[in-house]
Amino acid sequence: MRRLYLLLFLGVIILFPFKVFSQSDGDMLKNIFDDALTNGHSYEMLDYLSNKIGGRLSGSPEAAAAVEWSRQKMTQLGFDTVFLQEVMVPHWVRGKKEVVRVINSERYGAFELAACALGNSVGTGDQGIVANILEVDGIEALKKLGKKNVEGKVVFFNRPMDPTHISTFEAYSGAVDQRVYGASEAASLGALAVVVRSMASNDDDIPHTGTLIYKDGVKQIPAFAISTNSANLLSKSIKSQAGLKLYIEAHCEMLPDVLSYNVIGEIRGLENPDEYIVVGGHLDSWDLGDGAHDDGAGCVQAIETLRILKNIGYRPKHSIRAVMFMNEENGLRGGLKYAQWVKENNERHHAAIESDRGGFTPKGFTMTGSEEAYNQLVGWKPLFEPYGIYDFGQSGGGADIGPLEEQGTALFGFLPDSQRYFNLHHTTADTFDKIDKRELELGAASMAALVYLIDKYGINGKN
Amino acid sequence: MRRLYLLLFLGVIILFPFKVFSQSDGDMLKNIFDDALTNGHSYEMLDYLSNKIGGRLSGSPEAAAAVEWSRQKMTQLGFDTVFLQEVMVPHWVRGKKEVVRVINSERYGAFELAACALGNSVGTGDQGIVANILEVDGIEALKKLGKKNVEGKVVFFNRPMDPTHISTFEAYSGAVDQRVYGASEAASLGALAVVVRSMASNDDDIPHTGTLIYKDGVKQIPAFAISTNSANLLSKSIKSQAGLKLYIEAHCEMLPDVLSYNVIGEIRGLENPDEYIVVGGHLDSWDLGDGAHDDGAGCVQAIETLRILKNIGYRPKHSIRAVMFMNEENGLRGGLKYAQWVKENNERHHAAIESDRGGFTPKGFTMTGSEEAYNQLVGWKPLFEPYGIYDFGQSGGGADIGPLEEQGTALFGFLPDSQRYFNLHHTTADTFDKIDKRELELGAASMAALVYLIDKYGINGKN
Repeated sequence: MRRLYLLLFLGVIILFPFKVFSQSDGDMLKNIFDDALTNGHSYEMLDYLSNKIGGRLSGSPEAAAAVEWSRQKMTQLGFDTVFLQEVMVPHWVRGKKEVVRVINSERYGAFELAACALGNSVGTGDQGIVANILEVDGIEALKKLGKKNVEGKVVFFNRPMDPTHISTFEAYSGAVDQRVYGASEAASLGALAVVVRSMASNDDDIPHTGTLIYKDGVKQIPAFAISTNSANLLSKSIKSQAGLKLYIEAHCEMLPDVLSYNVIGEIRGLENPDEYIVVGGHLDSWDLGDGAHDDGAGCVQAIETLRILKNIGYRPKHSIRAVMFMNEENGLRGGLKYAQWVKENNERHHAAIESDRGGFTPKGFTMTGSEEAYNQLVGWKPLFEPYGIYDFGQSGGGADIGPLEEQGTALFGFLPDSQRYFNLHHTTADTFDKIDKRELELGAASMAALVYLIDKYGINGKN
Repeated sequence: MRRLYLLLFLGVIILFPFKVFSQSDGDMLKNIFDDALTNGHSYEMLDYLSNKIGGRLSGSPEAAAAVEWSRQKMTQLGFDTVFLQEVMVPHWVRGKKEVVRVINSERYGAFELAACALGNSVGTGDQGIVANILEVDGIEALKKLGKKNVEGKVVFFNRPMDPTHISTFEAYSGAVDQRVYGASEAASLGALAVVVRSMASNDDDIPHTGTLIYKDGVKQIPAFAISTNSANLLSKSIKSQAGLKLYIEAHCEMLPDVLSYNVIGEIRGLENPDEYIVVGGHLDSWDLGDGAHDDGAGCVQAIETLRILKNIGYRPKHSIRAVMFMNEENGLRGGLKYAQWVKENNERHHAAIESDRGGFTPKGFTMTGSEEAYNQLVGWKPLFEPYGIYDFGQSGGGADIGPLEEQGTALFGFLPDSQRYFNLHHTTADTFDKIDKRELELGAASMAALVYLIDKYGINGKN
């Protein structure tokens, strides 16, 4: 029955694609984009969040400032309800500057590599660690070498992101296991520490941090990222000289959990106020830059989505929520808490949209949900094409909204151009000066447009 | 007859879109993109052209260096033929820094505006000009005011680019008449000089130069651009105080024409060596930045197109030419000369592709040519979609290749993302650090892919 219905539905899309929306929707999207491009607040908001507050790792004073800033901002914008949702978050601190130094190069003597500790890493203690280096191109290669070759060494994971992927996120997915799981895999074979080639699309001197996950029951060893240039140099040095040794030093530590918050702003629905559409980003960022693209952009675009709909006088049927999730980067506590809270309160969530791929020119949306929902999204494509937005084919959602999936919420991921993202992701280079105002505004508008369409037509998700 | 054929052809495209290319074309495009992303030379070439040579206005020593650099570069890359084509170009020089100063503000006293002379402008002489300011929102408004209101004044053209256009080029087209024709229109009503709001998408302190065209028989008066922030401030000042006066000073002049060159590199065709496909950019740039996006990017992408095809072992049927046109910015002499030369030599040119919209992420191609050629281009769209390239609907070509149209050459314009272009176009901000390596490489690959398809299938142009 359902399958037959689906086939009929698909037939309608193919033969009469313009039946799935009306002329007035085109006018509404024009209003939305015009408002974003002429009255936009997103750039100004992100300037404040990035330049006045700055990097805001979970548990930091800056994260607390970001919570209070977004609460005030959404209140000032006149959203119907603004509230905080308590969540305990991990509190990792980097401590003083890390050192990764080659100490016995026959050619150069001692030289420093551009390095930073990975997020959640333990420190080395003040005395640091000296050990021989073992270069591998990934976890599988490491396992093949076995304990006798690994024990007592610093393992250097050096598989680059594959540049031939057009989506840099695919290249990232193909390499990031080294950063996330490398430390525990190496520790289980007796390694003293790991050094990981930065997850970067380009060759430069900037190390990229990012979370690692320690496996339960395995010794926690220090873990570092080094820049791609440093990785290339280190690899070349290893090949030309046996017995190369590193000195490494880091002072990071995990402190007790801290009370923090998801920050939620809401426009009340007219017809179904107890049914929700969520749009969100994560408020925490890494400590190295100011988190402008990751994910200040997503936060201000979520706020901007509600501001635009309100400003153009759209009265939604369902309640629309902007959610600033806390602790995406090193714990996902905010996303988990929100989904648990939704479940406990038996709140029906039709759809959730997350922006967490940077504030670049919009290209489309990814989706995770039912076939009907997917076909609905594809049916709206002609409405987005005048704005240069064409890509509705890929599956995906977002880390923070992922936990809502089990409740049947249709999940959408905002998909901007990805070419520049992994030049700055999780680094000192993720700063507000890398934001283009129009790109940011177009992204916010595309999110507002999708919220509008979902609100008007509903979404044939699983619930 | 032709119409019937066209309908049948369209039918084929709609019902069997995959009939217009083969599986092996998909593999070839993959080879092309992989080569650009792994062996690419475009970024390194552009680094040299931008940072070692720098801004290269027609007639300047830097333009001569750029000619010699591109000749050497294409020779080193082993193209079958590399040659120079003589062309006399205008030689405009800016002279010492311009001044645009409000001299009698009741609020601020005297203050400077961020300004530069427009390209081809005459100077003011050492004594400068002092005059009252008249603000207008365009040429039509100016004409309505008439001679009695304009005479003896400095006309301030202040109509902004419309931010609601998604393509910033459309916004540019809607405002640039003020810069190109404003001076002569104002002069014909007795104005002493003009000041034009910069053609910019953003609000900042950077003035944008660009060419003006003096009308024959009308007095040539000095013309300046001021930054968008300065334009906003000046407009506000004019509204709050009657009789506001400007002091303006510029030392630019037009010197005698200089011998320069188009630089041409060629891979000889196997089957039809006397029939051509051209890919090009313009080698000259404005003097203020280093011309990385405008149009160093287009030049290195043209060279890179031939390098890629050669490197992957593709042997073209037709001869493929990379043409670095000289003097696009303030005369178009190179483009006119090339077309004239092609005509004199009776060379058949099937297609020409120009990259002159910056080195950003590729979105598609514009086209000017026959309906058949347009349908061919659209038929190839599925081959480009895996690379995020979707936009094949708009008409257009490029300034330098425009003169080939009368010979029936199908004209294609490389269409990258346009959001950031008019933040830097014709300014001190158009520098190599604004180039993203992957974006540049993807553009080059998309041009090589189009050349390959045109070479393989021919193009049903007018000739």
